[in-house]
Amino acid sequence: MAALVPFSLLRNYSPFMLARPFIVKGCNLNFSKSVLPLPCRRLPFSARATHDEQAAAKAAAATADSGAPTIFDKIINKEIPSSIVYEDEKVLAFRDINPQAPVHVLVIPKVRDGLTELAKAEARHGEILGQLLYAARIVAEKEGILDGFRVVINSGPSACQSVYHLHLHVLGGRQMNWPPG
Amino acid sequence: MAALVPFSLLRNYSPFMLARPFIVKGCNLNFSKSVLPLPCRRLPFSARATHDEQAAAKAAAATADSGAPTIFDKIINKEIPSSIVYEDEKVLAFRDINPQAPVHVLVIPKVRDGLTELAKAEARHGEILGQLLYAARIVAEKEGILDGFRVVINSGPSACQSVYHLHLHVLGGRQMNWPPG
Repeated sequence: MAALVPFSLLRNYSPFMLARPFIVKGCNLNFSKSVLPLPCRRLPFSARATHDEQAAAKAAAATADSGAPTIFDKIINKEIPSSIVYEDEKVLAFRDINPQAPVHVLVIPKVRDGLTELAKAEARHGEILGQLLYAARIVAEKEGILDGFRVVINSGPSACQSVYHLHLHVLGGRQMNWPPG
Repeated sequence: MAALVPFSLLRNYSPFMLARPFIVKGCNLNFSKSVLPLPCRRLPFSARATHDEQAAAKAAAATADSGAPTIFDKIINKEIPSSIVYEDEKVLAFRDINPQAPVHVLVIPKVRDGLTELAKAEARHGEILGQLLYAARIVAEKEGILDGFRVVINSGPSACQSVYHLHLHVLGGRQMNWPPG
């Protein structure tokens, strides 16, 4: 399966983790819905994570406008597994495989429709943008973090965007810091 | 004027800055639209900023559900000055007075309509949520950061929300780091 998954989403995984790429447990991070034990990756995720993300984002940007399918297409089509938190006709939400907080979920439109990144949004996308943001709130409720959560959208390499299919990060379950990266 | 401005937005200002709360220049941060020189506040904004934000967020949360007007109502009503970047019938965007990046703009709905925080969003808010997110993209274009920007929404004290009127942070003009706070 690992061979099917683009580098961009695997950058922080060890070979051991690649064998179980969608499962993280055994930490004190309360990944309550995971099912198998794994060695703990501790917060903070440090400068190494930052530099990995920046490098991956630059690499991903090189093909951003190619229109090629991304790993999210495979997740939407259930060709590769994911831990789905919420789904409706237009939106899919699933756990980030490289979580930056006890709860870290990605919310994406099922149809990309030109929205490789927020920078590509047009007025006609208003409806789906609203649905995505409202879905982030639904995710927060389902995950039990409605009392405190952060939504982050990265657009472009300098914001660390690493998959060119618009996605909202929903993070919570710990004190978030300021500035936001 | 300082006496009119709630503590939550003044937490990082020195008395000198209070005299000119909406103007920051003189840094190497390229605040191109500012008009007066001020001593430079250097990036990174460090642990002190984080702790100030956390304390301010906790204080603000105590009155989150009171329904009381916030500083944003005064900005919307032009009772206190702000540096407006974009405005339409539903949305107002203005520079954050405590910027965390060379470009740091807040995007808010002109009518709060129950949206003290994203956690309070209901399905009926879908349209304004979409308008806000699209306005963030417009702001990025106007500010010349369409090639790289981050949108952040804090909901609740553990996410560092310090004003209980839904607002989107649009940040750019520097390399953003990961994790996002």
